[in-house]
Amino acid sequence: MELEQKVEYLSEEGWRQWHLELLQSTINRVYHRVPFYRKLMDEQGISPEDITDLSALKKLPFTTREHLEENYPYDLFAVPLKDIVRLHTFPGPRTPIVKGFTRRDLTSIRRLTARFMRTSGVSSEDIVQICLDPGMSVWIEELKEGAEEVGASVIPPDPQSVTNRIRIMKDFRTTVLVTTPSYALYLLHFMQTQGIRPPESLRILLLVGEGIASAERLKLEQAFGVTTRLGYGVTEAVGPGMGYECEERKGYHLAADYFLAEIVDPETGQEVAPGTVGELVITTLAVKANPLIRFRTGDLCRFLEGPCPCGRTTPRISQILGQADGRVSIRGIKVSLSYVETLLKETYGHVPEYLLYVRRHNFLEELELWVAINEKLFEPSILGLHQVAEKFERAFEETFGLPCRLKLVEKDHLDQVARGRKIIKE
Amino acid sequence: MELEQKVEYLSEEGWRQWHLELLQSTINRVYHRVPFYRKLMDEQGISPEDITDLSALKKLPFTTREHLEENYPYDLFAVPLKDIVRLHTFPGPRTPIVKGFTRRDLTSIRRLTARFMRTSGVSSEDIVQICLDPGMSVWIEELKEGAEEVGASVIPPDPQSVTNRIRIMKDFRTTVLVTTPSYALYLLHFMQTQGIRPPESLRILLLVGEGIASAERLKLEQAFGVTTRLGYGVTEAVGPGMGYECEERKGYHLAADYFLAEIVDPETGQEVAPGTVGELVITTLAVKANPLIRFRTGDLCRFLEGPCPCGRTTPRISQILGQADGRVSIRGIKVSLSYVETLLKETYGHVPEYLLYVRRHNFLEELELWVAINEKLFEPSILGLHQVAEKFERAFEETFGLPCRLKLVEKDHLDQVARGRKIIKE
Repeated sequence: MELEQKVEYLSEEGWRQWHLELLQSTINRVYHRVPFYRKLMDEQGISPEDITDLSALKKLPFTTREHLEENYPYDLFAVPLKDIVRLHTFPGPRTPIVKGFTRRDLTSIRRLTARFMRTSGVSSEDIVQICLDPGMSVWIEELKEGAEEVGASVIPPDPQSVTNRIRIMKDFRTTVLVTTPSYALYLLHFMQTQGIRPPESLRILLLVGEGIASAERLKLEQAFGVTTRLGYGVTEAVGPGMGYECEERKGYHLAADYFLAEIVDPETGQEVAPGTVGELVITTLAVKANPLIRFRTGDLCRFLEGPCPCGRTTPRISQILGQADGRVSIRGIKVSLSYVETLLKETYGHVPEYLLYVRRHNFLEELELWVAINEKLFEPSILGLHQVAEKFERAFEETFGLPCRLKLVEKDHLDQVARGRKIIKE
Repeated sequence: MELEQKVEYLSEEGWRQWHLELLQSTINRVYHRVPFYRKLMDEQGISPEDITDLSALKKLPFTTREHLEENYPYDLFAVPLKDIVRLHTFPGPRTPIVKGFTRRDLTSIRRLTARFMRTSGVSSEDIVQICLDPGMSVWIEELKEGAEEVGASVIPPDPQSVTNRIRIMKDFRTTVLVTTPSYALYLLHFMQTQGIRPPESLRILLLVGEGIASAERLKLEQAFGVTTRLGYGVTEAVGPGMGYECEERKGYHLAADYFLAEIVDPETGQEVAPGTVGELVITTLAVKANPLIRFRTGDLCRFLEGPCPCGRTTPRISQILGQADGRVSIRGIKVSLSYVETLLKETYGHVPEYLLYVRRHNFLEELELWVAINEKLFEPSILGLHQVAEKFERAFEETFGLPCRLKLVEKDHLDQVARGRKIIKE
């Protein structure tokens, strides 16, 4: 067994000792290198020396997505800009969030993602095809590099129609398909309606970006004749490889060598009772460029109790049961309502009444933004209104890497359908 | 001077000897490993032993994009599938084209792209931001890896609005921007109309995927206060790094250590007189997975005569002056009319009369497909017609990684504007 894998089987005492060392060095680094964290800690009267026990973590303040925005562009970097070898950007609540990677970070993430793949049964014999929307670009990079680390052949997500994707899958005898649960269901539906037989070579579906109900999972496994494995990640920290299923498939094992996890009440910020649903909070332990202390992921889940029959001693969480903040997950991409409002404001000069409508059209999630017609939207012509709508659609797609149709609707109709909600997910 | 660089200064005799050795080994490999090439050569009565001189190359038959399609998926691979570590797909004339890379190919391409960057003045101190459409995904990968090879920090093209791209450019003090000439002009126009000052940190624009007129180039250099360098590539072989400008900026130096270049009359296939415009034909010399013998690029250009004042002895070609085949370059992405017709047929069941209209809207190329209304397009409702058009738009964007609006127009109007043409580029 390689060291990489052994680590997942540490004893409770082993973990405690190692976590404490990693936490101490992390806190020490951020305190001395990130003025934001130093200030937060000073305000609470906490110094790195106070971290004598893992429970001291609870004294530290939370980091939120709003903090990431406020400290844009690089006030949260714990290394000089010259040590950053890659920078990714993705939409935050109101402005872009930036994530930097040192060479060491890229290596760590490659290893984590490779562990997720290996644990899922992927080997150097595999042909791994990645089908993900451009909005998941950070994950796409990580998955591609993780699969390369395993030694597999990789088919990255080039622009392709669904017909061509299936064709490529069959012609190149893809053995592992990496996609979201909703895209996998859409693929299956498409094949069934077109009378296309599932690719015989396929043996594993790696499902990332979203959870999936047991019935739908079973349907995928039976129809494709494959095993499915789920991966969980937080773009601000790391993509799949942060949490992954073992052969028992009882929740996500967390990569405890890279993160400490807590689950808190989203309202009070207090730790929830064991096994209760709350918001996942993570502290990175080995991240060089962008360490995060008690980062509120916004993801609702619960810890799974008791040891896992697989023997891994890492903590496990349930699937993600929802979002604590104003976000919605569409095809694995997190869309925050406040960013949608920012785009609406840029388009119309104000935020009109709206409804984000997520339809499931043949199992493919399609996004519509309903905007109530009002006199402020007034344009001299219908054509003008359409052009403005097109402008919004372009901005939305450029921002989230997802298409969204803007529909102008009567206010009464919007009110009737929305009934006070901002998001409807079919 | 590193070996990598020394190679660009070989003597004429040195090149001839080396080229012959590389050509012989390439022909030998494809003859024994690629049945398609063996058959072609057998038909012409040529054996690898006949390649005793560089001029023997002219006896070999051409390879076209149609051959790449016919030999899809992997009949042109010169290595077993297990040695392929990455597979990219992109649209060919009628069906997808697939390109495989061995680990060695990835290393070669990384070196070629790094040489393009170094020759253009990029160093490990640089922050390289890549702004390219998803349709250029193969090039994006190559450019990212080439910049990493140089040791620069890389900002890959995450989905982002133009405002955010400029913001990131300024906030992270981007020094090198990699984009297409048309996107650079669009950026400039956008900044000027919005009253945004160009990023002061920017010192080099690397322009790829298209050529640019001298006046527009000068405009970019003056407004941004930068140097511009152009790179040329052929997706079927390798992206920029195949041809790049030196400090003299007099045409593209070809990477003669990786390719042999000829220029032929697109009609007759005969070599053109020195300095005459014709179609560029390339033969790869160091490619392992997908070697190409006399591949007709479809790109019209001419050889530049005489030695380059920079001292490099590699052959030079002019900018690309047009396309010999039914393709058009839009934002650096080659769109083939026959593939557009394939999509139209899938959408409407037949190919209606159409016109591909490339507009320049504020310097950003926007694509419209005009379709003549006829009774065969009949749908029970206007809504139905729109839904079918949306279906086409989605398929187009998925295929080419470029948005395209479908407009239904009266046949008379289309005829009047098109006057027999299938493409209009403003």
